[in-house]
Amino acid sequence: MKKELFPPTITWSQGCVKLIDQTKLPHKLQYIYCRDVKTLWKAIKILSVRGAPALGVAAGFGVLLALRNKKFKDTQSIIKTVFEAAAYIATSRPTAVNLFHVLDRMKKVALLHQGQTVAALLKVLRAEAFDVYEQDRSDCRAMGKLGSTLIKQGNNVLTVCNAGALATVDYGTALGVMYSAKEKNKRFQVYACETRPLLQGARLTAWELLRAKIDTTLICDNMAATLMRQKKIDIIFTGADRIAVNGDTANKIGTYSLAVLAKYHKIPFYVVAPFSTFDLNIASGVQIPIEERGRAEVCGFGSVQTAPSKVKVYNPAFDVTDHKLITGIVTERGILKSPFKGSIKNMLKGS
Amino acid sequence: MKKELFPPTITWSQGCVKLIDQTKLPHKLQYIYCRDVKTLWKAIKILSVRGAPALGVAAGFGVLLALRNKKFKDTQSIIKTVFEAAAYIATSRPTAVNLFHVLDRMKKVALLHQGQTVAALLKVLRAEAFDVYEQDRSDCRAMGKLGSTLIKQGNNVLTVCNAGALATVDYGTALGVMYSAKEKNKRFQVYACETRPLLQGARLTAWELLRAKIDTTLICDNMAATLMRQKKIDIIFTGADRIAVNGDTANKIGTYSLAVLAKYHKIPFYVVAPFSTFDLNIASGVQIPIEERGRAEVCGFGSVQTAPSKVKVYNPAFDVTDHKLITGIVTERGILKSPFKGSIKNMLKGS
Repeated sequence: MKKELFPPTITWSQGCVKLIDQTKLPHKLQYIYCRDVKTLWKAIKILSVRGAPALGVAAGFGVLLALRNKKFKDTQSIIKTVFEAAAYIATSRPTAVNLFHVLDRMKKVALLHQGQTVAALLKVLRAEAFDVYEQDRSDCRAMGKLGSTLIKQGNNVLTVCNAGALATVDYGTALGVMYSAKEKNKRFQVYACETRPLLQGARLTAWELLRAKIDTTLICDNMAATLMRQKKIDIIFTGADRIAVNGDTANKIGTYSLAVLAKYHKIPFYVVAPFSTFDLNIASGVQIPIEERGRAEVCGFGSVQTAPSKVKVYNPAFDVTDHKLITGIVTERGILKSPFKGSIKNMLKGS
Repeated sequence: MKKELFPPTITWSQGCVKLIDQTKLPHKLQYIYCRDVKTLWKAIKILSVRGAPALGVAAGFGVLLALRNKKFKDTQSIIKTVFEAAAYIATSRPTAVNLFHVLDRMKKVALLHQGQTVAALLKVLRAEAFDVYEQDRSDCRAMGKLGSTLIKQGNNVLTVCNAGALATVDYGTALGVMYSAKEKNKRFQVYACETRPLLQGARLTAWELLRAKIDTTLICDNMAATLMRQKKIDIIFTGADRIAVNGDTANKIGTYSLAVLAKYHKIPFYVVAPFSTFDLNIASGVQIPIEERGRAEVCGFGSVQTAPSKVKVYNPAFDVTDHKLITGIVTERGILKSPFKGSIKNMLKGS
């Protein structure tokens, strides 16, 4: 795959954050330019930008936005601005931990360099946000390379939601594995779950995979089981929004369902996620906060209202997959294999 | 529940078949009047009328439509018309066996009474089609009464697609169980899976249950597993389109997925279906023909296109649930409990 196949999902461009507006795909490749933190916050909230690693990058750039066009007399006022911006950005979406990790990184760096000049501190904060960006690019390529060894010739691969270029800067986690396999000229095909309610699979993953010329078949989420029963799925790759120390993984709603079905049908189930998706503060999945979203997403389909207006709705954006259902976790430093007892903690300690 | 809560889904009205146009619900309660077999065939094809028992009723009335406004010289020409109409109606949809059963009934009755006068034969055919209609009404009430004993006070019930009044003449199979429980003043709530791609759960089941004042929460299909994990589902009821002699059950796509998830979470899984849904000619589910439908249903909904136009699509309308995953089958004559070895055959022999 050529490097320029995917335009960056998120970049810092001439003092503003430039985002692909993912609510417009696959129909239009259109950009949003965020010149203030509030605009970026809204873009995160309505999923114009989404995907745990991309949210991490957005968080770093968001802090830079808050510092933009301001005159600081001292480093304390910079630190105050960084902390206020971080607190505000943290209220956008609760589940993906990458966002909080990057906000923590920005705050730590600010405190660590508070003895420096205003100019030096601003420079170091800018470098930190760009480091998150560059790290995402290299992590995704490393995960892709490692994960692609799991795809055998002729495999049928299943994925859910979008853990691709659009969920990261430009390559993807679960889909990065497929891009790497394609670069190695492996022959395989992908089934993409459409991923209700917001259809990231149908809108984003199908768009990406077609663009990368990967053989792709779209299914409704409730069709995955029948494919498994027909032995048409050999391996499953998903992304992650937060991984607890024991390996329990929060990811897009529907992931847990696929993991149970995979267990029943004896199909290997892999999570692909960088270390920034692990949460050392959380022992197991029960502690992961799960975002619940509004009723309109479930009551309709795009602009079409389908359900009676008075029906009650349950709309969790994520679910938690038990670590026992996960065959392995592909990280940028290696593939962790189940059981994860200790292996996650050990690897995190080394980071 | 008052008898008039649901207007009949399908009736014979002044020489034509009057159908609720289910593609217009929940927004409009609108009727289609079929004055010829071709119009009825199309209504079946595009799911204006759907649901295995309702398709059986439609098949009987469809044969009457073919006989309408014709002058017959002899009974042989009636028989020819019945057989031709049956062959044509049989091409509408392949999976629900009720349709074929009723066509067989109409053909058998025609042959059995070929020695009678033209007027007598037409009368007996009309009586047969109306018997299917009346039998559906009484079967549904019998299944409802039996099945409702399975719902305990405070239960959370899950269902998929629409196995309600709209899938039958006016009461339903799986939803009939809930209507009966409501009549007995049981306290329970229902989670309805929206049922992609055609959203019968969101459009039809939610509409019916609200109309019956049953506490109902709509979810996307991929959210059922997370509810089960949270112990928020106590029992599952689904309809069926065809049941093999060993108990393997074809039903709306997504049913198999729920059955596997129910097994994993130790939740009882019941199929509710009249005897006309059993197929004595089919030993196991592998022999059940599964309808595959067009790409547009998966690529979008209604007028909204969501997926890239060039993506491949897999769109099976049904799946097959292994009998081992089914706790019991509620029929109009009793609840068959797993294992079904012999019990289905024995009950069918008695019919």
